[in-house]
Amino acid sequence: MLFLWQQVFKLMLDQLTICAIATSPGMGAIATIRLSGEKAFDIADSVFLSPKSGKKLADQKANTLHFGSIVDGNELIDEVVMAIFRAPHSFTGEDVVEITCHGSVYIQQRILQLLITKGARMALPGEFTQRAFLNGKMDLSQAEAVADLIASTNRAAQKVAINQMRGGFSSELSALRGELLHFIAMIELELDFSEEDVEFADRGQLRKLVSKIETILRKLKDSFQLGNVIKNGIPVAIVGETNVGKSTLLNALLNEEKAIVSDIHGTTRDVIEDVVNIHGTAFRFFDTAGIRETSDEIETLGIERSYSKLDLATVVILVVDTTNGFGLVAERIAKIRDRIDGQQLIIAANKVDRGLPETITELQNMSLSANEKLVFIAAKQKENLDLLISEMQQAVSLDSVSEDAVIVTNVRHFEALSKACESIERVQFGLESLISGDFLAQDIRECLHYLGEITGEITNDEILGHIFKNFCIGK
Amino acid sequence: MLFLWQQVFKLMLDQLTICAIATSPGMGAIATIRLSGEKAFDIADSVFLSPKSGKKLADQKANTLHFGSIVDGNELIDEVVMAIFRAPHSFTGEDVVEITCHGSVYIQQRILQLLITKGARMALPGEFTQRAFLNGKMDLSQAEAVADLIASTNRAAQKVAINQMRGGFSSELSALRGELLHFIAMIELELDFSEEDVEFADRGQLRKLVSKIETILRKLKDSFQLGNVIKNGIPVAIVGETNVGKSTLLNALLNEEKAIVSDIHGTTRDVIEDVVNIHGTAFRFFDTAGIRETSDEIETLGIERSYSKLDLATVVILVVDTTNGFGLVAERIAKIRDRIDGQQLIIAANKVDRGLPETITELQNMSLSANEKLVFIAAKQKENLDLLISEMQQAVSLDSVSEDAVIVTNVRHFEALSKACESIERVQFGLESLISGDFLAQDIRECLHYLGEITGEITNDEILGHIFKNFCIGK
Repeated sequence: MLFLWQQVFKLMLDQLTICAIATSPGMGAIATIRLSGEKAFDIADSVFLSPKSGKKLADQKANTLHFGSIVDGNELIDEVVMAIFRAPHSFTGEDVVEITCHGSVYIQQRILQLLITKGARMALPGEFTQRAFLNGKMDLSQAEAVADLIASTNRAAQKVAINQMRGGFSSELSALRGELLHFIAMIELELDFSEEDVEFADRGQLRKLVSKIETILRKLKDSFQLGNVIKNGIPVAIVGETNVGKSTLLNALLNEEKAIVSDIHGTTRDVIEDVVNIHGTAFRFFDTAGIRETSDEIETLGIERSYSKLDLATVVILVVDTTNGFGLVAERIAKIRDRIDGQQLIIAANKVDRGLPETITELQNMSLSANEKLVFIAAKQKENLDLLISEMQQAVSLDSVSEDAVIVTNVRHFEALSKACESIERVQFGLESLISGDFLAQDIRECLHYLGEITGEITNDEILGHIFKNFCIGK
Repeated sequence: MLFLWQQVFKLMLDQLTICAIATSPGMGAIATIRLSGEKAFDIADSVFLSPKSGKKLADQKANTLHFGSIVDGNELIDEVVMAIFRAPHSFTGEDVVEITCHGSVYIQQRILQLLITKGARMALPGEFTQRAFLNGKMDLSQAEAVADLIASTNRAAQKVAINQMRGGFSSELSALRGELLHFIAMIELELDFSEEDVEFADRGQLRKLVSKIETILRKLKDSFQLGNVIKNGIPVAIVGETNVGKSTLLNALLNEEKAIVSDIHGTTRDVIEDVVNIHGTAFRFFDTAGIRETSDEIETLGIERSYSKLDLATVVILVVDTTNGFGLVAERIAKIRDRIDGQQLIIAANKVDRGLPETITELQNMSLSANEKLVFIAAKQKENLDLLISEMQQAVSLDSVSEDAVIVTNVRHFEALSKACESIERVQFGLESLISGDFLAQDIRECLHYLGEITGEITNDEILGHIFKNFCIGK
């Protein structure tokens, strides 16, 4: 079913057939180029040559594969396999042809250019998914989950994203919204008959529904703190003075599992943040550029910078050097305790292999508060890093994320949920204080609006544009 | 048809079902994981859940697409499309399932690991193509062309590779080999009847065949010089003294077309060679690390290094500084002329925007030999770079590569062709000097051997291992 605004929005976009490379950029064994739209078959047939002469893709059954060549006039570009999907049974809901070619970057570009000369248009970021949304194949929160799924770098993020892509909380919100819509119709009917003082909307039932909605919305809203960590990794700040071994520790942690490490690059080669997936949990290390600098002057700047980011961290690792006297070490710890505000503090007592016995004993005897942990490590020898990682993981327990956990990971959803919560609380208050129907109706309408924004039942160009521009091209 | 040794080799390899990520590594909208072997359907079905309950991939028709989920027990990993190919009508000639999933690196790895736990083995580099070869889907030179096609970064390389993948010269060599085999059978029959002095093999026909083979082999062998340039790029050396603008020129040329630039990295971040595709022609710049160094001491080393590589270059660009007096400039030119041996020399007279009028005039009046060109440029302002590039392209004209050009690009083929050429020349000489049948037979056998090595009709583990280990994984 298409909502009216979806139909309007569809008219505003051009109806051209779009194309893009859908696989990861760069050389691979094979690559896939996606073509979607009314003319997908015509365009594909204009460059496709089957070994069976005269065979046209347009005549083939849906969901079939066809071997052949991509040709530009007489010039042979590549041997390919064409996958055919027919509207509405495709990802976008349109006719789709997927061309799987050899993975040379030159060949990929060549085929893409050829499709464009034959009348296709280069797809915008997320435009395939946008079309899927506009064609009613998925709601807006499902479309957003597609991007989250592609960007997922760990088990928890993948679990939450795929759950959301398959409906997740948006179907529940949509149902609740339907019930609210029924009540508002009743209340507005009352307003039409306001002089007769009738009550079409059962206040008892409405109170129950509003209470149910409030509980659900609050739970979803509260799940965002965990959701954000799942999506972006547990934010970790490593702090400490020069030469205590911060850089060694960081490198040891980043190398712990090489499989999935992503660098978030700045404009230059300066690495700003490192995300690393350790035993299935993503950790995001702040300001690693500062840590990596070796020059003393820059290191000092780095320390200032990392202190200023402490508030953003969930876990703070203070590295201290056990080869120093306890007095100096205790001073560092006192200094960081002053700056900590609710975060988990892990004191990593480094160089324990050659630490001063007195410093080690004093540290062992030091009393720790509930949000503090002490781990003795030797970063260079990679000793006790497992213990440190285990403490980092316990700081935010992601194991509690169950198979069908409903968790909000999206800032846009969080904001809409927060506003919907506020309005439903006003409705609750209004019901208790027996407020008049027209005020009730206004707050219910507001709640309906915010719920609709999440599922996409209510939206506008600006929201859509913002959502899809963050997608990768080819999806 | 399988040759005996292919059958033997097949028995030596395990028959396990293999799997690998076939698309470019990293995050994309989608990614494809390939599964090939006897148990491809069983393994795929063990992790696939269709929305139509009870549907099994094993029961589906060849060349069809199926939407569903990848599951690990109760855990949902991703929603995917499965493409089914059935032996022998697949790339490898075996049963093949291609899983197209969302392009998250985590999801790709997760599915791959799941397939391995279900009994698949991680494919070795090139193992899919190796199986295609072993199953008689292509000969060896066609298999090698698959790798060339994937690595092709320009039009000429793609053209030659796809031509070779579709048969190219190997079918012709195979036919010639068949004719030679006929003759050797006749000659060996003569040897059996040697006391009776009969001639089963018509010497006139043999002479004609040998002459034809010699012509073809020589042409193929000679095409390698061009083929090598097509495959690896035109080797260009940029030389000149410190501060004449080599680095500025190199960067300007490398930035000319950003689309396809590949760096061949050394063990460290040291860039050894830069390949750049300019207007469809690949140029390979030597020892760009040397050029990029700024420290004077290293620059000097760099100059020595780049001079020592002059022999490997097809084009030598000597950068001179027109703000210097002509005496100094002429000295540099004389020095390089001494070192040049048949290569195209392009004298890039740089900083022409502020050059000394006298130096410029003298340069203009300087007489040039046939393999020398003079171009006035201002590298910093990117002036006249087009002219320079055009001179570089004319040094090796690739436009002459026709649609069905038969060009050898592979060192292995070149070596086998060279040896086959030598033996066929000995056969020719033997025929002219009326040498006895057993000596003739020996030389013909040698020629047959080398021709067979190209097509793969004769080969061994070592050759195969060497060829396929250079493939990318997933192909």
